[in-house]
Amino acid sequence: METVVIAGVGLIGGSFGLALKGAGFGGRILGVSSPQTIEKALRRGAIDEGASLEDAAPRADLIYLAGPIRAILETIPKLDGLVREGALVTDAGSTKRRICDAGRGLRRALFVGGHPMAGKERRGVEEAEAELFRGRPYLLAPARPEDLESGAALEFTGWLRRIGAEVRVMTPEEHDRAVALSSHLPQMLSTALAAALGGEEGARWAAGPGLVDMTRLALSGWDIWQDILETNRDEIVRALESFGGDLDAMRAQLERGLPEETFRRGAEFARRLRERR
Amino acid sequence: METVVIAGVGLIGGSFGLALKGAGFGGRILGVSSPQTIEKALRRGAIDEGASLEDAAPRADLIYLAGPIRAILETIPKLDGLVREGALVTDAGSTKRRICDAGRGLRRALFVGGHPMAGKERRGVEEAEAELFRGRPYLLAPARPEDLESGAALEFTGWLRRIGAEVRVMTPEEHDRAVALSSHLPQMLSTALAAALGGEEGARWAAGPGLVDMTRLALSGWDIWQDILETNRDEIVRALESFGGDLDAMRAQLERGLPEETFRRGAEFARRLRERR
Repeated sequence: METVVIAGVGLIGGSFGLALKGAGFGGRILGVSSPQTIEKALRRGAIDEGASLEDAAPRADLIYLAGPIRAILETIPKLDGLVREGALVTDAGSTKRRICDAGRGLRRALFVGGHPMAGKERRGVEEAEAELFRGRPYLLAPARPEDLESGAALEFTGWLRRIGAEVRVMTPEEHDRAVALSSHLPQMLSTALAAALGGEEGARWAAGPGLVDMTRLALSGWDIWQDILETNRDEIVRALESFGGDLDAMRAQLERGLPEETFRRGAEFARRLRERR
Repeated sequence: METVVIAGVGLIGGSFGLALKGAGFGGRILGVSSPQTIEKALRRGAIDEGASLEDAAPRADLIYLAGPIRAILETIPKLDGLVREGALVTDAGSTKRRICDAGRGLRRALFVGGHPMAGKERRGVEEAEAELFRGRPYLLAPARPEDLESGAALEFTGWLRRIGAEVRVMTPEEHDRAVALSSHLPQMLSTALAAALGGEEGARWAAGPGLVDMTRLALSGWDIWQDILETNRDEIVRALESFGGDLDAMRAQLERGLPEETFRRGAEFARRLRERR
């Protein structure tokens, strides 16, 4: 792996460039982004040069698509006409089924979907850091399990481990269901809670630190969430349905007694979640 | 106000003692708690001496009940036989209707319910601090509005302002409805979410910082929540019902389109919540 092209040099793309260099990658890193972003990314040292997709893609051993889901979906079909035979294309999008479907259409390049479970509240290459992936799960969703055995894929996963990521392999379907529960459902609850309290006179003055925690996700940008909701709609609907049932059950418990067992299970999960980190 | 008795010298009670002294209170502060807690509170300087309720109450100008709701409800009926005529009794419990009902039964003392909207993740007098109440709302729920015009009540509210609290007056009913929405509903959602994800294989590895935020309240102790759920059951049930309807509506929006408007309203409330702080 000599030449890496990062398309979308934001928080994730920029961090990937910094992480590769920090882990000893000696090849060349090309960035595809707006001129302003390229300038910032060059200054941060996240990339070695900026280029258009048309100029960069033919030189790439690895193309790392780190833009919004919508941009990833637009870029993939263009790549077959640009890339070298045998190049590896991967992405860092938050949903996987639609993106991996698009990746399956590539003939000359191998596509392996990816999703680093890493992030920060603020976005942009200014926030990028070489250690962003360290100790964090990094999902890979190959079209077929044997795709990960190719030389290009083995080299890529080797670099992922070197930048500190914990590589996990699952199907796009398994991924989209898992993130619907662990990421998209919490977002919907935070947004719904904040929206519900917006109309309540007394709720704001009575707010404590707990409500601040519970409404932090509600600050997330709509641009990102529009793409996620559109590409994982069925799983999110299913997660909301299932959670609605849980909430009804908890309310019924409270009407006739106390939901002590639910509190016990919730506290246990919350503790285990923190132990893992 | 010469002598203050703090019954339950934990985080809130201990902080009230420290705050009074920090604001220049020159009288005596008696603590009623377990021997171990009294020792720690004396070492922190939150109280001047420890005493039993029977010994302390007859000396008090102000009795500040800062134990669990259950302890407050048990203590109030005992006070009529102990206190000086005209003493003021107040509390720091998280729900107000049941406590204020009990307070109305006092004949010799005046009862004004209270609820400081201040706290910390960790409890105990070790965590107490003089500045805990500064800039935070402090609710007062008098049985009748004119109760706040009595000399004892005016002196107490003067001290609340001196320790930096923002005093707000509402009825116990208004209070319990407001905290059902701003505090108890978020707790139930965090607990229900954490409990729901406990059974999901993939959810824990796919967890990001958002899920950590959303499950922090699920770590709260059951002992505190048992009291809150028992004394505010109807309002919490109502809040859960209403939120369940909001969630259904959001799901329906997602099934046929996108809940952009809900995201906008949620982000707006979350932003306003942070501006106030």
